[in-house]
Amino acid sequence: MIMNIGIVGLGLIGGSIGLDLRSRGFYVFGVSSREETCHRAVDRGVVDAASVNLSDMAAADVVFICTPLGSIESIARQLVRHLSPAAIVTDVGSVKTPIVQAVSSLWPNFVGGHPMAGTAESGIEAAVRDLFVGRPYVVTPTAETPAVAVEGVEEIARLLGSDVYRCGPEEHDRAVAGISHLPIVASATLVAACAKEGDRDLVNLAQHLASSGFRDTSRVGGGNPELGVMVARYNRVELLRSLSIYRDCLDEFISCIESEDWQALEQKLKLTQAARKNYKLSN
Amino acid sequence: MIMNIGIVGLGLIGGSIGLDLRSRGFYVFGVSSREETCHRAVDRGVVDAASVNLSDMAAADVVFICTPLGSIESIARQLVRHLSPAAIVTDVGSVKTPIVQAVSSLWPNFVGGHPMAGTAESGIEAAVRDLFVGRPYVVTPTAETPAVAVEGVEEIARLLGSDVYRCGPEEHDRAVAGISHLPIVASATLVAACAKEGDRDLVNLAQHLASSGFRDTSRVGGGNPELGVMVARYNRVELLRSLSIYRDCLDEFISCIESEDWQALEQKLKLTQAARKNYKLSN
Repeated sequence: MIMNIGIVGLGLIGGSIGLDLRSRGFYVFGVSSREETCHRAVDRGVVDAASVNLSDMAAADVVFICTPLGSIESIARQLVRHLSPAAIVTDVGSVKTPIVQAVSSLWPNFVGGHPMAGTAESGIEAAVRDLFVGRPYVVTPTAETPAVAVEGVEEIARLLGSDVYRCGPEEHDRAVAGISHLPIVASATLVAACAKEGDRDLVNLAQHLASSGFRDTSRVGGGNPELGVMVARYNRVELLRSLSIYRDCLDEFISCIESEDWQALEQKLKLTQAARKNYKLSN
Repeated sequence: MIMNIGIVGLGLIGGSIGLDLRSRGFYVFGVSSREETCHRAVDRGVVDAASVNLSDMAAADVVFICTPLGSIESIARQLVRHLSPAAIVTDVGSVKTPIVQAVSSLWPNFVGGHPMAGTAESGIEAAVRDLFVGRPYVVTPTAETPAVAVEGVEEIARLLGSDVYRCGPEEHDRAVAGISHLPIVASATLVAACAKEGDRDLVNLAQHLASSGFRDTSRVGGGNPELGVMVARYNRVELLRSLSIYRDCLDEFISCIESEDWQALEQKLKLTQAARKNYKLSN
């Protein structure tokens, strides 16, 4: 029976998990590297108690590592010294293969996870209730992951109100390369291309005329640079594969326009219009 | 003194212009190729009267051609036979150079225009009041366009509540190639690339996991195929120029990721984050 939840990293995701699990009767203990964040987390009711010491995770049944991708492995390395043998460890990183590989070798009861929810905000003050309701929560066990650990994480994900998906870490990373990481680069490339215009008057005009098409297509490319670098580092092989396909598709569009093959262009745009409708999007 | 307004093409844009100008005391006469649209336009109060005959435009001081790009020139060719010599003709097409070239030679009092407003809807039922308030309205005279005609159109654009910009047709087309037409192709390419994944299980997973990043980046690429073809046909040279710059920028991003030059990638993403903030966007 899972009773004690540990959360390492009290930001938007870690904090929101804490709020929801406390409201469902769990005892939630938080760890942050900053004393001030620990105080704020307790004040906001995000956790029952918090400290800067990973050793305080000894009583946890399940520990969520909710730090940025780049520190998950080193946190896990320190954390496992303090855990009780049956403890389940999971993470919320947006790339899974390298994390699952590294952390499973440190702690067999590790289950990779990726709750696909967020807001434009970050940090403990951004934590909100019900962030995960109706959102996908991907759980990525390997053939070696103990079933009881996988089921424990999935049970909590369902308690958060998420739609749970189970797949291998590699499948996850290939899927998100296309739908999450490729959009960042395609979108950043749009901003970079528009910024390359040499004529200042024209750039100024474009900045005033830009409307919802530019706004939406450029949004994720104008986002957090550190996050963009992190997903590119951790999901490099799959992202490069997606980018290579993207470049081929781009060349096909360019070729239609160069050769004035309007029938082919219309056909391609009809296919993309139809293909987009197959995605479960909120609009 | 402008008193009588003619509108050819009673869809979202033409209808919305009619609603606003009637409310400001103009007499508005509409022409549509479909009798039913004429009836609906009168019933909805979009126009004072309407018919299917361009000859009924004889009394108009200013005529707005609000049909799709592909029919503006042929409409103008028929229209000019019926106009009084001082009448001003303008259009609302999203590409200007070929339109201004063709129609100015038919009617010297022609002023190209592009009100940059819209909704996801189309047709007479989609017409709404105040669609143009606070939106850019680009007016694209040439050196030969009579000043009185330019000023007449700008005055009406200001009455609609728009922010008026004046530039040459070529400048307009280069600016919108980057901010309006390139996003369509970059966005469609994203959908095409994701649809190219051969593994059906993976496509199915991706369709369920796609979230706001994919939703926003793919939106304009999943839009009306006819519109996409039309802007590519009419703004082909400038769009190809933008696409060529885009491909170069894409190759630079790919090169950073291939060579694992994370500092360079972060620098590029910081520049795009900063560059996007220079656009006057509603979010």
